Amino acid sequence: MTDALTPEALEAALRAVGEQRYHDRHPFHALLHGGRLSRGQVQAWALNRFYYQSRIPIKDAAILSRADDPEFRRVWRQRILDHDGEQEGDGGIARWLRLTDALGLDRAYVASTAGVLPATRFAVDAYVRFVRERSLLEAVASSLTELFSPAIISNRVAGMLQGYSFVPREALAYFDKRLSQAPRDADFALDYVKREARRPDQQQAAIAALTFKCDVLWAQLDALYHAYVTPGHVPPGAFVPEDA
Amino acid sequence: MTDALTPEALEAALRAVGEQRYHDRHPFHALLHGGRLSRGQVQAWALNRFYYQSRIPIKDAAILSRADDPEFRRVWRQRILDHDGEQEGDGGIARWLRLTDALGLDRAYVASTAGVLPATRFAVDAYVRFVRERSLLEAVASSLTELFSPAIISNRVAGMLQGYSFVPREALAYFDKRLSQAPRDADFALDYVKREARRPDQQQAAIAALTFKCDVLWAQLDALYHAYVTPGHVPPGAFVPEDA
Repeated sequence: MTDALTPEALEAALRAVGEQRYHDRHPFHALLHGGRLSRGQVQAWALNRFYYQSRIPIKDAAILSRADDPEFRRVWRQRILDHDGEQEGDGGIARWLRLTDALGLDRAYVASTAGVLPATRFAVDAYVRFVRERSLLEAVASSLTELFSPAIISNRVAGMLQGYSFVPREALAYFDKRLSQAPRDADFALDYVKREARRPDQQQAAIAALTFKCDVLWAQLDALYHAYVTPGHVPPGAFVPEDA
Repeated sequence: MTDALTPEALEAALRAVGEQRYHDRHPFHALLHGGRLSRGQVQAWALNRFYYQSRIPIKDAAILSRADDPEFRRVWRQRILDHDGEQEGDGGIARWLRLTDALGLDRAYVASTAGVLPATRFAVDAYVRFVRERSLLEAVASSLTELFSPAIISNRVAGMLQGYSFVPREALAYFDKRLSQAPRDADFALDYVKREARRPDQQQAAIAALTFKCDVLWAQLDALYHAYVTPGHVPPGAFVPEDA
């Protein structure tokens, strides 16, 4: 039996998970941000990542549906607005589709998610299930990967603009918004976890939830790497780039 | 709107899914059965596959819990007996642990599933969910990969005995049993699907369920290939073979 961590020590433990396991360390991102992928490989990334984007408001609605506190819900509901927008064509999902448009992907095909790797679906669906079924504390803690996203987003935007002539500036509007949204969301979630995770078992559950979420992100890049980089084994039925 | 298939045409459509998507076509199996893996790579396969084995009786119990017909349940319960055995040390899971023992893996480590690839867990858990949540017809149809397993098992046993001096004959007892169990199970499930899937929508759902299950098996091998063959990127926290 370990003693409870102070809130500051818990935050340090959570940040250590990110340092070891956040997907900024994944070799697929080094290729993506270094301009070393073909247009077809960037298409595969954007197409698969769309599935993740499309599940985020569903995940956040699951969290909302489990929160007793109106104040918590008032804050958390902003995430759903951010992704779904005020009207059609607005919000993070619509901005992601402008990226896939710019990459030359058919919008109906992207939105159908028909070409997504099964491994992407399994990983993302595992995340939605986790949020539905574990404690609210674990669900909130699993969102804390956003603590680590501003650095990767900055690298991505700079690297993609420099590395890919086929990616226009306006196609990356999704990421501009996330640069302000993610820190606001992460700060709230971190405060919540530091306040609510007081017992050692709760603290370990929060750390495990963030570890799980890092695994969800990492597994998506492993699957992209295997299918579209090396050795380039696209599973039956999944998207095949024209330049493959 | 398509017409309903005859039972024979439905069977042909299901067998066509297996021909296109069953994991006997996966390059990882070519390496495994061809004696071209190191001991550590075979360990990684057996360790990950243990997680799948460990979920099979849970999956079958979910099917049992959803079946109204005592006759159906009397037949299907045999699958649980086959995997869990009559007493400790008996049954398919225990036989799988004798394989991991023979490969030099620590039994407590294997049973903990701590070193399993996250992608293995996501895929296998997706299968258990599918069986819990979809129709009984789809749950049964998803088991039909066993139609295709006798050929792969024969190849595997012959290939592993010839290719790996570190695999003794008795370590492969799991597969001997499956050679008689799988056809019996698959025949019953195929008869059920041919009898119950009469409407076109039911038939398409059955075909989709088998496709889904093929994706579950394929994704596990993709993850093994990526982590342990090429490029050999083991995700954070997963099993690292001593010979890696």
